[in-house]
Amino acid sequence: MRIEKDFLGEIEIPDDVYYGVQTTRAIHNFSITGHMLNEDFVTALAIVKAAAARANMRTGRMPARIGSAIVQSAEEIIAGQWRNQFVVDCIQGGAGTSMNMNANEVIANRALEILGETKGNYALISPNNHINMAQSTNDVIPTAIRICTIHKAKKLMEALNALADAFKAKGEEFSQVLKMGRTHLQDAVPITLGQEFHAYAEAIKRSIHRIEVTVKSLHAVNMGATAVGTGLNAEPEYITFVIEELSKLTGETIYSAKNMVDATQNTDELAEFSGTLKVSALALSKIANDLRLMASGPKCGLNELLLPAMQPGSSIMPGKVNPVIPETMNQVAFQVIGNDLAVSMAVEAGQFELNVMEPVMAYNLFNSLTILTNAVNTLNYKCVQGIKANVKHCNSMIDVSVGVVTALLPHIGYEQSSMIAKEALSTSRPIKEIVVSKGLLTAEQLEIILSPGEMTQPGIAGKQFLPSA
Amino acid sequence: MRIEKDFLGEIEIPDDVYYGVQTTRAIHNFSITGHMLNEDFVTALAIVKAAAARANMRTGRMPARIGSAIVQSAEEIIAGQWRNQFVVDCIQGGAGTSMNMNANEVIANRALEILGETKGNYALISPNNHINMAQSTNDVIPTAIRICTIHKAKKLMEALNALADAFKAKGEEFSQVLKMGRTHLQDAVPITLGQEFHAYAEAIKRSIHRIEVTVKSLHAVNMGATAVGTGLNAEPEYITFVIEELSKLTGETIYSAKNMVDATQNTDELAEFSGTLKVSALALSKIANDLRLMASGPKCGLNELLLPAMQPGSSIMPGKVNPVIPETMNQVAFQVIGNDLAVSMAVEAGQFELNVMEPVMAYNLFNSLTILTNAVNTLNYKCVQGIKANVKHCNSMIDVSVGVVTALLPHIGYEQSSMIAKEALSTSRPIKEIVVSKGLLTAEQLEIILSPGEMTQPGIAGKQFLPSA
Amino acid sequence: MRIEKDFLGEIEIPDDVYYGVQTTRAIHNFSITGHMLNEDFVTALAIVKAAAARANMRTGRMPARIGSAIVQSAEEIIAGQWRNQFVVDCIQGGAGTSMNMNANEVIANRALEILGETKGNYALISPNNHINMAQSTNDVIPTAIRICTIHKAKKLMEALNALADAFKAKGEEFSQVLKMGRTHLQDAVPITLGQEFHAYAEAIKRSIHRIEVTVKSLHAVNMGATAVGTGLNAEPEYITFVIEELSKLTGETIYSAKNMVDATQNTDELAEFSGTLKVSALALSKIANDLRLMASGPKCGLNELLLPAMQPGSSIMPGKVNPVIPETMNQVAFQVIGNDLAVSMAVEAGQFELNVMEPVMAYNLFNSLTILTNAVNTLNYKCVQGIKANVKHCNSMIDVSVGVVTALLPHIGYEQSSMIAKEALSTSRPIKEIVVSKGLLTAEQLEIILSPGEMTQPGIAGKQFLPSA
Amino acid sequence: MRIEKDFLGEIEIPDDVYYGVQTTRAIHNFSITGHMLNEDFVTALAIVKAAAARANMRTGRMPARIGSAIVQSAEEIIAGQWRNQFVVDCIQGGAGTSMNMNANEVIANRALEILGETKGNYALISPNNHINMAQSTNDVIPTAIRICTIHKAKKLMEALNALADAFKAKGEEFSQVLKMGRTHLQDAVPITLGQEFHAYAEAIKRSIHRIEVTVKSLHAVNMGATAVGTGLNAEPEYITFVIEELSKLTGETIYSAKNMVDATQNTDELAEFSGTLKVSALALSKIANDLRLMASGPKCGLNELLLPAMQPGSSIMPGKVNPVIPETMNQVAFQVIGNDLAVSMAVEAGQFELNVMEPVMAYNLFNSLTILTNAVNTLNYKCVQGIKANVKHCNSMIDVSVGVVTALLPHIGYEQSSMIAKEALSTSRPIKEIVVSKGLLTAEQLEIILSPGEMTQPGIAGKQFLPSA
Repeated sequence: MRIEKDFLGEIEIPDDVYYGVQTTRAIHNFSITGHMLNEDFVTALAIVKAAAARANMRTGRMPARIGSAIVQSAEEIIAGQWRNQFVVDCIQGGAGTSMNMNANEVIANRALEILGETKGNYALISPNNHINMAQSTNDVIPTAIRICTIHKAKKLMEALNALADAFKAKGEEFSQVLKMGRTHLQDAVPITLGQEFHAYAEAIKRSIHRIEVTVKSLHAVNMGATAVGTGLNAEPEYITFVIEELSKLTGETIYSAKNMVDATQNTDELAEFSGTLKVSALALSKIANDLRLMASGPKCGLNELLLPAMQPGSSIMPGKVNPVIPETMNQVAFQVIGNDLAVSMAVEAGQFELNVMEPVMAYNLFNSLTILTNAVNTLNYKCVQGIKANVKHCNSMIDVSVGVVTALLPHIGYEQSSMIAKEALSTSRPIKEIVVSKGLLTAEQLEIILSPGEMTQPGIAGKQFLPSA
Repeated sequence: MRIEKDFLGEIEIPDDVYYGVQTTRAIHNFSITGHMLNEDFVTALAIVKAAAARANMRTGRMPARIGSAIVQSAEEIIAGQWRNQFVVDCIQGGAGTSMNMNANEVIANRALEILGETKGNYALISPNNHINMAQSTNDVIPTAIRICTIHKAKKLMEALNALADAFKAKGEEFSQVLKMGRTHLQDAVPITLGQEFHAYAEAIKRSIHRIEVTVKSLHAVNMGATAVGTGLNAEPEYITFVIEELSKLTGETIYSAKNMVDATQNTDELAEFSGTLKVSALALSKIANDLRLMASGPKCGLNELLLPAMQPGSSIMPGKVNPVIPETMNQVAFQVIGNDLAVSMAVEAGQFELNVMEPVMAYNLFNSLTILTNAVNTLNYKCVQGIKANVKHCNSMIDVSVGVVTALLPHIGYEQSSMIAKEALSTSRPIKEIVVSKGLLTAEQLEIILSPGEMTQPGIAGKQFLPSA
Repeated sequence: MRIEKDFLGEIEIPDDVYYGVQTTRAIHNFSITGHMLNEDFVTALAIVKAAAARANMRTGRMPARIGSAIVQSAEEIIAGQWRNQFVVDCIQGGAGTSMNMNANEVIANRALEILGETKGNYALISPNNHINMAQSTNDVIPTAIRICTIHKAKKLMEALNALADAFKAKGEEFSQVLKMGRTHLQDAVPITLGQEFHAYAEAIKRSIHRIEVTVKSLHAVNMGATAVGTGLNAEPEYITFVIEELSKLTGETIYSAKNMVDATQNTDELAEFSGTLKVSALALSKIANDLRLMASGPKCGLNELLLPAMQPGSSIMPGKVNPVIPETMNQVAFQVIGNDLAVSMAVEAGQFELNVMEPVMAYNLFNSLTILTNAVNTLNYKCVQGIKANVKHCNSMIDVSVGVVTALLPHIGYEQSSMIAKEALSTSRPIKEIVVSKGLLTAEQLEIILSPGEMTQPGIAGKQFLPSA
Repeated sequence: MRIEKDFLGEIEIPDDVYYGVQTTRAIHNFSITGHMLNEDFVTALAIVKAAAARANMRTGRMPARIGSAIVQSAEEIIAGQWRNQFVVDCIQGGAGTSMNMNANEVIANRALEILGETKGNYALISPNNHINMAQSTNDVIPTAIRICTIHKAKKLMEALNALADAFKAKGEEFSQVLKMGRTHLQDAVPITLGQEFHAYAEAIKRSIHRIEVTVKSLHAVNMGATAVGTGLNAEPEYITFVIEELSKLTGETIYSAKNMVDATQNTDELAEFSGTLKVSALALSKIANDLRLMASGPKCGLNELLLPAMQPGSSIMPGKVNPVIPETMNQVAFQVIGNDLAVSMAVEAGQFELNVMEPVMAYNLFNSLTILTNAVNTLNYKCVQGIKANVKHCNSMIDVSVGVVTALLPHIGYEQSSMIAKEALSTSRPIKEIVVSKGLLTAEQLEIILSPGEMTQPGIAGKQFLPSA
């Protein structure tokens, strides 16, 4: 055991751990979720520390020998080492000071080790003076949150892109599957299953676009803001250098926030980004609902789609198969929506120069990104790509429905069409038959007016038969 | 025009209005929603003022001549007069001071008029010294919110009771309508439509019970707490008397909050009550969804229910009828859920001795109560009571479905039942036929095992045929 | 009274009203909120109808005499006439069919009147065949919602711009007011009040930018989609023309949605826009909280700001003045956040070719836009512009605080600085005195290191004294 | 490896694992959160399985030898064994079928092992036929959720009780600490710090009461409902027995839901319970906010409370200590509020005979209960119990404030009091001095009227001096 101290006193630390006194206090203080920091966030933290050390070396403030050891230490973490040394709970007070100090202490002790020194020899390499040089929790944590979010958002966009492609491919596959469109869950007018699947693809593409736009705002970071955004203790050249180093390490174009005081106290951009995930969740949940409805059956439902059978659906009902994958999508959507509210409340709770609720924002953002990405991939690979259409049933519904009467509207008017619809419903006689028997239109005219191709694209079917034409 | 003044200065007031300087300032300050105070809340405010005046007369602090004029004035408002004098916006800063002063000023000026004096002669009857005697906005407004909520909650409970009765009556009517039960939107095992409607009735009754319980907490009021709950300027006898008078005027058993400091600063009971409305909304939305699903059709849907046709459903699709009443219920549910979030955020925002966000809480609580009551009555009288079952279609689904195979589970086991289900689905041969052809059970045995009566109540159908029996 | 009929039967309509049978049914069916359609939405609906009539005349489908009367009728409504004829409740089932038919009927009857015909003579001008020609509720209502939102969003952006300017102007005015910055509500390091106000301006500008971006998406409309997005009964030329006419009438660049089926069934763009309002509300609520905190006092609070006194703050506490305007901002923010949840739930509830919950989305969007605009203007004109700084008190806090010790960090290190801070707090001796007495830095050096100008901008104060320099 | 099969086909299972084919499919299907089932939930599941096996033995349907092995197997799990065999993701489609089957398979294979048989020999002991006998996922999972929630709620209530006690004890300790009460963050009238802490205790007790009431509803379970609530395949005696066994195993009075169809399809009671947690979170967040505000400082804040110093507060600001524990409470509150929304959305999404979204409800309920319990204990033991009052500063504020003028209201009226308050604020002369100089009251009278004891309890201070007295 080694002894470490801070201004609150001394504490014993096991010799083999790389974190120190402040991390140890945080372990005792925050035993809330039992979940440690997100892996991608640890990477992001280490990237920030490496970038800062490099920038501090470039300004000459950080001695090269120490700086190099720090950079090596941080890079080891980026590469996946020392992960078990990140031990603070993901929900914690202090605006992330404990996350930052956890990184500072692990990197300091590992750097000491690299230099052949013993852990805890902070006179040589200090977590606060060296690893945190020209930094504050208040710029490190917001920056690391952004870098992690950018990384995770990319994975989500890839997943969404693949899902949009899958829907688009199915849209092509089903482009000739004519079915009844429904509004209000009531028979409306014909549509193709392909048109529906293309619409899903479009909605998902819009989600991707939205994420792309909002993730761009997250490329502005407040490194150099230090404690309250004024930049105290951060040299202007350092601020320039650290941004350059961050860009190098992430492969992204990172830039300085326009107003550092603003960027340190306001977290609306995290709410904005989380809101984007919420809107994606709403769209995906609607799609999942549609898939479940169209696949309802196998005998007593709408029975238009056949989803791949993934597992027996019931512990008691033999042979039952349930739409478990879309159901997962729905539940993940609900979680993302709930997470967004937690983020929103945290964003509103900022006070003065800082929003101390950033840990809970990060927790929910990362959670939403992770589960949404997983659910989107699951929906794609375990459901959408294997969907089959019940073509025969879809087509047969067109014949029994009266919704096609809408196509007659330009020809015989709303009132007459209404009466024909009513008669067709009460007598179960086909629309065509009634119209012909009343002498309103001929069978030949109806053949054209009610042809599927005409009814599923813009235009007045049988325009040539219009009275005025 | 008359001149009125407060410590911020003088202001001109038209001679014919009953409100005064502080209300006038509030009109200028708060032009937000364009909606004035809820009618029931104005009544509640006047009740509080009448009760306080009576209590102050009983302690001897309020001269009888003035007190009587105040009581008469408040009672006129309760009876529906002077409503157009309540002119402050329902969302306002100041924790409701402007609502309270609006009432104080109107009552003062009307009381002056009753005594033959001119409006504005506050030396004789003062909005602050007399109408507000022994009171503060901080006890008046929370108390009036509670009295208004109790009143409105009763109307909602009546509406819910009537709806539960309607579902119960339909449950009886449909008790013999056998249909396929669905889980995961997939065919499960038989159930009766009556059982489903009884379940809806039960869920609604639970909502009523929940409202009953939480509305009880709202009978505890903080009258006498005055500014911060310490009761400064409120004599102990007054506190006793004002509760008695409130009980008399409302016909409810109103009582004093256990801890007045707590009751003045905390508003969790409003969040609790709002939460109760939210849970009711969730249950009602689920029911509305079920009704819309069961009524889907008329040709290409589940087609189990016929909802009363309330209006043409489309401006373009002739003869279309939509489930507009359940759709209204859904939308009102969403609004109530949103309102509950506004209440929750406001409740969290309390600081120290007061929660100044009470106006927005009241606005949302009253709005939720009003629209929920209206939607519930609409659902009942314009939809549920007129619902008809498509009995023939419901029954026919039992025959085509394979879900009944579940009843065979105790007889032939899960694995064998699964295989039969699979075969039935792929071949469209009836379950019975397959089972008999395999020699697993006889046609006679199956007649009993698969009888609807057996399958829709607890027990093992055909228990006598079990191997071990 | 005149008799009108639809396929559900006949109904009596008073002779003097312009709406007809379908509106009358809607009045009976939907008695929910007691609030009629938003004024700006009625305008938007009339714009859509005028544009459609013009487009239909251009294709030749609509006879000029009838079309001209329709256009005139719609333009009268745009100009503010016939508003009392729009009588349907803003929350309604049917996806807005009743709103659309209310407009169709009023315009039809007024057009008949213009042509010297009697109301109800629908054989000549029919609400469905003429006013609704080539349209469906399912394209008219989403389009009108967008046009109304675009209009209202402009007003909000103007209000936000003016507020940002006001904060910026105050930022200039307070640029030399040095005060202690606070993180975690604890003394941190110096900042200027001007820096804080500039940060508020920046956050608001970001809100404006966000609204600008999302409102752009709302310029894509689905006119011509008709019932389910396939465009049945809408000629391609009409679709082109109606967009042109909409652009002319609104002065905005309106365009056709890329995929009409998608645009008809999905409402994620409304959730996105509402989410933008939510993020604005979060930022504004944070600012309002800061203002209230800084203005806390007048004796026992932080006492840094003096907000304009708008009204007496208490019915019982003489002379009290409360921050009623920021309190209003907070409450409006909570309402907007609640409204956003209602919108979100409605968006998720779409099914198949349509989201029938659009009325409740529109209700909440319009409500949020209205109250947010009003609250922002109120905050600006009744509070921010009149804010004064308590300069003396702000400055004096710098002297008593120990937070300035942070500027010593580069010079004497974190550990030593910590100990000095601890000593200063326990002894109340000034930081400078302790540092000098310990011989760590000279008084002259400290004069430079701790100068306000140095401490409130990026850089290491007194860099020339660094050991390594 | 052993081969297992279901009606979808065969699958290879490693010999050493106790779960089987259906769990394996679930692992492949649901890779969402990376979090397995909550430990307490696994216990609850095993309790349900043990109770069912015992009940099935009592009815004679389950052979004793098999039943005993099943019970032993389940009891081993309850005791903490085989936990690593519960491997399905906590968010999953299928309403929990995979959770249920995971338990069925592990118990079956362990029971086989107990009987000396090899794993996978389901002909002897079948996961579906034996472990799941007379059960369905649709009664097992809702029941296990309730049992787990009851268990966790007890822990939360214990934590809340201890916190309420701590606040109460501090209330006693601070009962003589006079300070200025604040409303609107503005100086109001005097109060004691003890009164404030007692109010916190009261609010927490109300939360406990609310949890007690709502957790009672969760004692009603739907065991015996089987697939859709009709009880198919569950003998009436079994239903009685399984409730008895559940009560024995849990030590709670478990009873049968009144209406099983209702209890199987509706989940409003989970929303109700979650809502209760939300209201607790709102109240606790308000308290945490107050603590942080009162502890603001150490020099430039309100400085009324000293919270225990738990850790260095900043990586850059030496000597800074932050209120990290209350900040944790706030963040946990936000999470619980977000979780409640996820639960609410899931509850609304139920359809027909089942709500398939139960897994996400359970996930959020359990998460909220866990983190709330941890945060409450943390707040209690790491903060509240160590709070000290800054008595001197609290008292001194009373002297500088003008809020005490309220006590003069009954003596000299609102208008005159207002003017005195105004004069005191502008001149900084003490209230007493001004009043005496104006000859309104004597110094002796003021001594009594303004005595702290009088001002912090109900009554008119110096009532004997009232003109009318």
